[in-house]
Amino acid sequence: MPFKRKDLLGIRDLEVHEMEHILEVAFSLKEINTRPIKKVPTLRGKTVVHLFYEPSTRTRTSFDIAAKRLSADTFSITASSSSIVKGETALDTLKNLEAMNPDIFIIRHSASGTAQRLAQRTTASVINAGDGMHEHPSQALLDMMTIKERRGRLDGLTILIVGDITHSRVARSNIWGLTRMGARVIACGPPTLIPPNLEEMGAAVSLHLHEVIPEADVIMMLRLQTERQQQMLLPSLREYSVYYGLDGRKLEKARKDVLIMHPGPINRGVEISPEVADGPHSLILDQVANGVAVRMALLYLLGQR
Amino acid sequence: MPFKRKDLLGIRDLEVHEMEHILEVAFSLKEINTRPIKKVPTLRGKTVVHLFYEPSTRTRTSFDIAAKRLSADTFSITASSSSIVKGETALDTLKNLEAMNPDIFIIRHSASGTAQRLAQRTTASVINAGDGMHEHPSQALLDMMTIKERRGRLDGLTILIVGDITHSRVARSNIWGLTRMGARVIACGPPTLIPPNLEEMGAAVSLHLHEVIPEADVIMMLRLQTERQQQMLLPSLREYSVYYGLDGRKLEKARKDVLIMHPGPINRGVEISPEVADGPHSLILDQVANGVAVRMALLYLLGQR
Amino acid sequence: MPFKRKDLLGIRDLEVHEMEHILEVAFSLKEINTRPIKKVPTLRGKTVVHLFYEPSTRTRTSFDIAAKRLSADTFSITASSSSIVKGETALDTLKNLEAMNPDIFIIRHSASGTAQRLAQRTTASVINAGDGMHEHPSQALLDMMTIKERRGRLDGLTILIVGDITHSRVARSNIWGLTRMGARVIACGPPTLIPPNLEEMGAAVSLHLHEVIPEADVIMMLRLQTERQQQMLLPSLREYSVYYGLDGRKLEKARKDVLIMHPGPINRGVEISPEVADGPHSLILDQVANGVAVRMALLYLLGQR
Repeated sequence: MPFKRKDLLGIRDLEVHEMEHILEVAFSLKEINTRPIKKVPTLRGKTVVHLFYEPSTRTRTSFDIAAKRLSADTFSITASSSSIVKGETALDTLKNLEAMNPDIFIIRHSASGTAQRLAQRTTASVINAGDGMHEHPSQALLDMMTIKERRGRLDGLTILIVGDITHSRVARSNIWGLTRMGARVIACGPPTLIPPNLEEMGAAVSLHLHEVIPEADVIMMLRLQTERQQQMLLPSLREYSVYYGLDGRKLEKARKDVLIMHPGPINRGVEISPEVADGPHSLILDQVANGVAVRMALLYLLGQR
Repeated sequence: MPFKRKDLLGIRDLEVHEMEHILEVAFSLKEINTRPIKKVPTLRGKTVVHLFYEPSTRTRTSFDIAAKRLSADTFSITASSSSIVKGETALDTLKNLEAMNPDIFIIRHSASGTAQRLAQRTTASVINAGDGMHEHPSQALLDMMTIKERRGRLDGLTILIVGDITHSRVARSNIWGLTRMGARVIACGPPTLIPPNLEEMGAAVSLHLHEVIPEADVIMMLRLQTERQQQMLLPSLREYSVYYGLDGRKLEKARKDVLIMHPGPINRGVEISPEVADGPHSLILDQVANGVAVRMALLYLLGQR
Repeated sequence: MPFKRKDLLGIRDLEVHEMEHILEVAFSLKEINTRPIKKVPTLRGKTVVHLFYEPSTRTRTSFDIAAKRLSADTFSITASSSSIVKGETALDTLKNLEAMNPDIFIIRHSASGTAQRLAQRTTASVINAGDGMHEHPSQALLDMMTIKERRGRLDGLTILIVGDITHSRVARSNIWGLTRMGARVIACGPPTLIPPNLEEMGAAVSLHLHEVIPEADVIMMLRLQTERQQQMLLPSLREYSVYYGLDGRKLEKARKDVLIMHPGPINRGVEISPEVADGPHSLILDQVANGVAVRMALLYLLGQR
């Protein structure tokens, strides 16, 4: 069944068969990245525009590598660029770029809903690369791909998401996706960083990491924005680390085949200890590798329209 | 007749047949931008260097898209780059880059005459992408293309250019080009923003927008640099907007088929109201689309040398 | 004999036959840069990542042009990028990028030894584009290429390196390379800017430029970091210039066929006068042109692995 959407704005919108289709395409394209000649002509002559209102190296580079390996031409407009600085609205910037006939916009913005709002006003495809605290769908898809690659499935697995759930678009996209794919999700963090609506989203909640660690097939650690401390949402980084950071001692209580994930960039010694981040359970670099494959799949599927 | 110039530095230098030739090529290349595969091999293996001493997203992206759709390799040196910061002269930067065998430099600089001065010192082609208050020839060419696309001709039309004429290279390039192509140009703005030599350039002057609006086939609004107020050249943005901003009420006095243009980025509610910018008379996005076509034409013509 | 290394980290590591091989390849690739179509498919589908922790326009652009003329895809991560700002370690950044399957990293960092440290932790190739005060091997190779192009050989020549030897990775790489290739190197500068170990490296030392100028086949001027004055390493720029700057008057005592070099960007009137920088003895722009050729050679040799 072909992929029929114009845009990829959030995981919440996606049907199970659509997620499965994206992952299948990603698995089949992944192999291109290990060839001696890592390039196929699929998107030759297509124009991909990165429109990043928040700084990002990792996500933008991942999309850019994905696009160029499919032979697309890419252009990057960042928050420090002048038109944005000159006070032009995001919509005016988009409409102007649209007049240059791009095929796909990849948009990151600090305001939730920006990608959707812009997608409604352009005939080009829009991929949401993170909008405020709302969604980061390509991250959730690469996380699902990484788990599926190791476990062969998502349904029936217990997946712990640990940290600042409230401010995390990664958590939100993963909860929508993983629960719909049949996994059991437990969100774990300090009460000040747990939003009220998680049960409606289908996730269980725990305030005590040590209690739920033994049940987990996968532990997904979130990056802690250290500025949360200044906002009085945390007593101290040290105390956060003691209760919600993952280190070797806490890991002793986990299943022997537990998988550890993190969207990066990691704060070593805050939410994850070096021994865990670099240890045998860690899939952090698999996530990065699969990120390129998932983004190739998204660009491929949207670029075929 | 082939295009014989090494550089494109200003509209003032161009003969009528040269402008007509550039526009013809632009009209014929425009169609590439709406193909499924928006790429032709014309400039494969050519090196295009953006050398931007003033920030610019819009113009640089337009040139960059144009260059890549012709298969050129592009490189971008901006004012925030280090060698420029390190205090190297613009000429030393140019000579160094020249030693790397570029084919075309695209130069923007805050000092009038920079593009010309540099063009004399390099064997590569130079396109002036805006030099101080002097010229911005690709903008004037895309404006002419946009009018011609709608009206079929330029000669005999009455074109109003409204706003800060003194500081506008867009106005200057358009006055040189439009008058030479047979149009009647009226420059309109507050007395503090009207330079003394307009009549020598072939343009009429009006200080009263409401008086000249009824005569116009085209109204070209200029972006107001809001810092002009601090320089005491404007009483207030509000008063400027009342007398020289274009809104629906002023537009009622215009011809029914009047065309509204603006080089962007627009200050909504200052020099142009949203209803006019987004209304049926507005060609603002056609200008952007034709910008890519005109720049493809310039790169194509200079790249054939 | 094929080039067998994974990385190019410093000149100190290289055997004479390896340097000769790199220069041979550079001489043979140089001609591509003057073709009408400056592009060969050698590195098509290869991924080259610039990882620059220090600002650099000139070196990065040179590598970028070299890579694209060999048809590689290039990606640039700079110090102002967000993940670097977010406090991620250089090693984490490298490992993350490595997971995206790059072929070659080009690394510049202010800490000596960074390129080597990172090279040990990645299976991708690493080219050191300057690490602290340690080495800048591609600069030394392009300098050797430029001398050899003019004189046909390096051995037996007397080469003066003048300026701030202590803080110069360019000087260090050139001393290792030139002495090994059989040249006699004299390092010349004020006592505060001469490091203690030069004789062990094979270079002679002079504190008096006027005394050694007559012996030189080549005078290689170094860029003076003007902030050395604030660090009390210089009495004044003016005095430095009088004793160690190269101007027409000092040049009168040199051999008639002396060659003048400078890695750029030059401080006109500080370490070199305009008449010398732009005069008939100057090879400054040849160095830049050969920089692209040498970097093409390095990318070609490492990209064949």
